[in-house]
Amino acid sequence: MKKISLLGATGSIGIQTVDILKNNPENFHLVAFSSGKNIEKTREIIQQLHPELVSVQEEKDARELSKEFPKIQFTYGTKGLVEVATHPDSTVLVNAVLGSVGLESTLAAIRMGKTIAIANKETLVTAGHLVMEEARKNNVQILPVDSEHSAIFQSMNGENPKRIERLILTASGGSFRDKTREQLKNVTVKDALNHPNWSMGAKITIDSATMMNKGLEVIEAHVLFNMPFEKIDVLLHKESIIHSLVEYHDTSVIAQLGTPDMRVPIQYALSYPDRLPLVGGTRLNLAQIGQLHFREVDFDRYRALKLAYDAGKAGGTLLTAMNAANEAAVALFLEEKITFLQIEEIIEQIMNNHSNILLPDLETILHVDSETRKTVAKLVK
Amino acid sequence: MKKISLLGATGSIGIQTVDILKNNPENFHLVAFSSGKNIEKTREIIQQLHPELVSVQEEKDARELSKEFPKIQFTYGTKGLVEVATHPDSTVLVNAVLGSVGLESTLAAIRMGKTIAIANKETLVTAGHLVMEEARKNNVQILPVDSEHSAIFQSMNGENPKRIERLILTASGGSFRDKTREQLKNVTVKDALNHPNWSMGAKITIDSATMMNKGLEVIEAHVLFNMPFEKIDVLLHKESIIHSLVEYHDTSVIAQLGTPDMRVPIQYALSYPDRLPLVGGTRLNLAQIGQLHFREVDFDRYRALKLAYDAGKAGGTLLTAMNAANEAAVALFLEEKITFLQIEEIIEQIMNNHSNILLPDLETILHVDSETRKTVAKLVK
Repeated sequence: MKKISLLGATGSIGIQTVDILKNNPENFHLVAFSSGKNIEKTREIIQQLHPELVSVQEEKDARELSKEFPKIQFTYGTKGLVEVATHPDSTVLVNAVLGSVGLESTLAAIRMGKTIAIANKETLVTAGHLVMEEARKNNVQILPVDSEHSAIFQSMNGENPKRIERLILTASGGSFRDKTREQLKNVTVKDALNHPNWSMGAKITIDSATMMNKGLEVIEAHVLFNMPFEKIDVLLHKESIIHSLVEYHDTSVIAQLGTPDMRVPIQYALSYPDRLPLVGGTRLNLAQIGQLHFREVDFDRYRALKLAYDAGKAGGTLLTAMNAANEAAVALFLEEKITFLQIEEIIEQIMNNHSNILLPDLETILHVDSETRKTVAKLVK
Repeated sequence: MKKISLLGATGSIGIQTVDILKNNPENFHLVAFSSGKNIEKTREIIQQLHPELVSVQEEKDARELSKEFPKIQFTYGTKGLVEVATHPDSTVLVNAVLGSVGLESTLAAIRMGKTIAIANKETLVTAGHLVMEEARKNNVQILPVDSEHSAIFQSMNGENPKRIERLILTASGGSFRDKTREQLKNVTVKDALNHPNWSMGAKITIDSATMMNKGLEVIEAHVLFNMPFEKIDVLLHKESIIHSLVEYHDTSVIAQLGTPDMRVPIQYALSYPDRLPLVGGTRLNLAQIGQLHFREVDFDRYRALKLAYDAGKAGGTLLTAMNAANEAAVALFLEEKITFLQIEEIIEQIMNNHSNILLPDLETILHVDSETRKTVAKLVK
């Protein structure tokens, strides 16, 4: 029985994590979780999984729920996230919050020696050096939840990482993969949210369309697998059946495949090193699919991906600036305050004006993060 | 430094094995090898790799070579194969002979505790129960050399075999994959030897065209990985890029890919559990390949594959009868004494008339083997 803390229970990954925990009551117990403002869903999870501690975003919601569930402890806000992440009974933290908000609580959980199942790529992108150093010091495993990184991780099973020649991350190309840059000028939020293969949250779906998502994943792969950027490739593969590949120095390539279903990598991170049957999973039928397609990625077409490689190679606070600029710009696009192509423009502008600080500490990262958001807000006023 | 015994050094797999040994003198030393009647090639290998013991097919060739290389020990015939396989200095036996001739020497090497790298699928097909039982008793590893089984083996790295739901062997479809049964009536030996993806020996190329090769591989997979036939599928994949796949019970599928190059699985069996750089290897470029195709296999079209599944499920000496009938029929086809479709007809006729003996000993297997060959010879007179 693994005891789990879960950050971001009512988001897309969080809901699917809860689904897996519900389906495997003999293997997992949810000790503590955090959610945002979706109190209806929070209530549902409490009733289904009987945690000991729950953190919500607002104090008033915590008070309200306390009355309803007197046996359960409630907390709220940023300190609540840390309390959930560091709950003394849990041995695994699933970090499924969005954005850089997950950083502090993840570091706190690592210091307590908990295994980290990480879906929060911004934590690794902006503070990868801090997270991995802390993990090494505390002998803690960081397990990927993202489908691409899980695929790489599964393709490295039993292998000597020194024999790796290249990591190949596949990319569906997002909702606009068949559009030229010219055609991208007038796309709407609704168009952008219509991802062909994966059902995900709004922010990540937009990141998929700009391919900043793949850029963040490239950086995440660099951090998680300690691989230079020159050895990380992106391959367009519209069917999203091969989730990623690892090439070894004998030219042998190992890959992980499956029908697109985020529950597979989530459950793998929870059950690792074992595998559990996936309740309601769809088996891969390649004969039925018939064909898989592959194309080289065009960095002119996907400018955000190029920017991410640039930021990754430079390192330092440039990563935080890039990530914060992207988060802020995507939010503005979702509010229909900027156009789709302005997302890239804003990121590029922020990156061009950034004075990079290498190996930043947590305080510096958080400072650059908030300053960048302010700058982006000013840019569109 | 691994010390190697090699059976069948001048065959297709043998030559490529020698190539790998030559390219990695710090990792491997060829202690002993056997060859057939190709004395020119035998001489070349001796000069390049300086073995201690060499076995050839004919006594007169052994005498001749003895005069030429007085410091090297020469032997011949079936007893020569056993001497090479059981050479006291080698720790690994590569069995790359064709047909059931490799059986006795393999069993002898297993009893001496040597690791077996097996390319000789007939040994596993006809006497899988004896080989695997002997391997278990002597705590010996049987490593696959066939590209499909190597792919499965690589896709099982670090995994719990109990979590496997299905093995999926890919099949190119052979030289006649785009022909109907009607069109197969008049195909020639030359047509059959023209394999689209792999450069292999004549017998295995014909087996590829009938798909008996895939049938033998299905049985080999059953033996090597202890998997019921119901959990072994064959998938048509004309590009031969995905060499095979393993599906786990969480619906995750692990696969091994690469440009078709037999040296990859051969070298992997030699370097296992490590990997060595492949000298002159071609890296996989999926973007350049562009598309991979998959189709269900049609058992009516590929009758030999159906016969192999039937024999596999029945077990016993039926496997030997099927294999011997196939070897004899393929030889007759290569001599242009029967048509292509008569290969299947002969196998089916032999199988229909066979009185099956379950769990046969070595003597029984060898008896059924020679009797079957005699029967096939009579059939075409």
